[in-house]
Amino acid sequence: MPSFKQSEHKLLLIPGPVECHDDVLLANAHPSMSHVSPAFAPSFAYCIKALRKVLYASTAQPFIIAGSGTLGWDLVAANLIEAGQNALVLNSGYFGDSFAECLETYGAKVTQVKAPVGGRPSLEDVEAALKKDKYAVMTFTHVRSTKAASEIRCGAAPPIATGVLSDAKALGELVKRVSPETLVILDGVCAVASEEIHQDDWNIDVVVGASQKGLSTPPGVSITTVSIKALKVLENRKTPVASYFANYKRWLPIMQSYENLTPAYFATPPVNLIYALEASLKQITEGSPSLEERFQIHREASKKFKKAAEELGFKQVATEPEAAANGMTAVYVPEGIAPPALVGALGSRGIVIAGGLHKDIKTKYVRFGHMGVSVHPSRNDVDVMIKGLQDAVAEVKHQSA
Amino acid sequence: MPSFKQSEHKLLLIPGPVECHDDVLLANAHPSMSHVSPAFAPSFAYCIKALRKVLYASTAQPFIIAGSGTLGWDLVAANLIEAGQNALVLNSGYFGDSFAECLETYGAKVTQVKAPVGGRPSLEDVEAALKKDKYAVMTFTHVRSTKAASEIRCGAAPPIATGVLSDAKALGELVKRVSPETLVILDGVCAVASEEIHQDDWNIDVVVGASQKGLSTPPGVSITTVSIKALKVLENRKTPVASYFANYKRWLPIMQSYENLTPAYFATPPVNLIYALEASLKQITEGSPSLEERFQIHREASKKFKKAAEELGFKQVATEPEAAANGMTAVYVPEGIAPPALVGALGSRGIVIAGGLHKDIKTKYVRFGHMGVSVHPSRNDVDVMIKGLQDAVAEVKHQSA
Repeated sequence: MPSFKQSEHKLLLIPGPVECHDDVLLANAHPSMSHVSPAFAPSFAYCIKALRKVLYASTAQPFIIAGSGTLGWDLVAANLIEAGQNALVLNSGYFGDSFAECLETYGAKVTQVKAPVGGRPSLEDVEAALKKDKYAVMTFTHVRSTKAASEIRCGAAPPIATGVLSDAKALGELVKRVSPETLVILDGVCAVASEEIHQDDWNIDVVVGASQKGLSTPPGVSITTVSIKALKVLENRKTPVASYFANYKRWLPIMQSYENLTPAYFATPPVNLIYALEASLKQITEGSPSLEERFQIHREASKKFKKAAEELGFKQVATEPEAAANGMTAVYVPEGIAPPALVGALGSRGIVIAGGLHKDIKTKYVRFGHMGVSVHPSRNDVDVMIKGLQDAVAEVKHQSA
Repeated sequence: MPSFKQSEHKLLLIPGPVECHDDVLLANAHPSMSHVSPAFAPSFAYCIKALRKVLYASTAQPFIIAGSGTLGWDLVAANLIEAGQNALVLNSGYFGDSFAECLETYGAKVTQVKAPVGGRPSLEDVEAALKKDKYAVMTFTHVRSTKAASEIRCGAAPPIATGVLSDAKALGELVKRVSPETLVILDGVCAVASEEIHQDDWNIDVVVGASQKGLSTPPGVSITTVSIKALKVLENRKTPVASYFANYKRWLPIMQSYENLTPAYFATPPVNLIYALEASLKQITEGSPSLEERFQIHREASKKFKKAAEELGFKQVATEPEAAANGMTAVYVPEGIAPPALVGALGSRGIVIAGGLHKDIKTKYVRFGHMGVSVHPSRNDVDVMIKGLQDAVAEVKHQSA
């Protein structure tokens, strides 16, 4: 008798983990391989190189480490700022609060610029803060073009994830202009591979990511890409890195060695997940549609879904719709509909969506994911989600009528 | 065209990662599931409960966290000892050095009791050390019955892994007798599920483990089980835990919540790997042979392989053969045979073994793994390994003759 039976699979349309392509799942089921096998090293090297492409980061150093996305905060806090130094956190909710707490754990002095629900700290406020004091790092959550700086990290259960894109480009340029020594840290856990991030051009020193969002890989891999400038800051630290496992100095030679196809050891990497990541990155960087088209497809899918949701009476949490995230949608449910009933009605239709996170409004809104392989032209997940939502709304309204 | 092709699979007989059962690989290929899905929680709960069985730990709290086995050292060092407190490290090589370094990273004052290559610190030396000073924690690497205290952690590339079992039981009792407040930390990364560990009875406060060794699951999960006593030490800390991700205080409510079938969130768990771990733990704790028989099978497989290797002129690194590890064998290669040639000759026969780690002797010995599913009666991996070794030795000797 098999010791395992896969449980019934519903279409997973939350802001991560997201659906994985069958090839990615097959890769994750790779028979055991030695982490120091010459046959495995090319897969590790491939992932390192492909991540640079995804982030338009020609020289940054990707770190691929077993862990949750959250480990990326520790990596930043333990390596790129020293106890007693200042950190500026642009905060629009749960993930901002948490990143601040993580920085404080390692002794940073945190100043926050807070945003209203669904909104963003203004560039003026950020500029004023940057001019007031000297910061070793400035952290914020993703990005799009020119409008809103806020929260797009959309992890999981507790507060926030309101589906708003921050203006990474403008923030990167702002720091370069008024505080060039400050390292710019972008929490892109919910943005990598679903939103365009030009790490080089936008003056972003670290992008914090994870495997289970736009990269359409199972969870368990922390991905951070670190600029040369940030690596120099690391090299010139006056105090030792205050972590053993989350120590870039230990991982840097390992990543460089694997990239040169020579396996090296500090701690055992998540071999199967790296095969899975390789399979997904191959689709993302070499497949059709192209990387650029892929970002465009995310934008179109997002637009299509948001429009359909609005027609059903849902209202976006993002206060500036043109700054809404492209990989997810956070919407207030229409009057008379209880979020749990809606989540249940979709569940009975084989579709899994997520409840709210932001503490001030968590019982009032729901979240949908539309990123990674789910928006690929070979699938119709977004249409299924729209149809499911229409039917679910009709059912729930009918019940409460 | 598929974006991924599994590479040729050779029989992986290193001291971890080890072979996985097909059911475990299938579980690892589970379609994406939400980490907060009520359908996923029972799998997480199952793993927590089954780990207690594997370690004969009725009340200890298992922590299942995305990360390498090495993360377990940070968990101990950041949570169970405070900066300025003393740690006693029983050190027989690479992993002892590293654990000491990890403890120092978090501010512990480390005293080491060192063992000679292949040997163990004597119980007398340990007792003398314990009486000399007050230690918050004492760390050592696994265990068997009554003979040798030394190194069994057998991870990967750099130094040591000499296949020697320490005497966990005697060490636990010794601490209880002469220094009852000291927490006993067993680095069992290479021992969990391949060697008997009676956490409760032996007075072990923390067992540090990982998924990819005796648990026959792909790498990427840090597993630590923590006694009630150690959790009280955590609760009564005077200083905050010096890590954000590796903070037991944040993970404790999550583990308790999943065990009660209520998903909770701190950081996204490695969902697929937890399904894989569940599948393997089901075989280990509910399958045939029983858990007790499984340990016996490991002992028999070990004896059989070691005898065959000795007949070929290999000499065990362990200086007390009755204290040799049961999940792996470290042996000096016979005169006239170069380890790389031997590794290559086995590789060409479809068998992957590992080179040496211990810095003093690394070019002189090789390591074989025989743990987890590889020793299951339904397979003949050990016989294949013995036959392969015989043929490889004949080939290499012939070449150099």
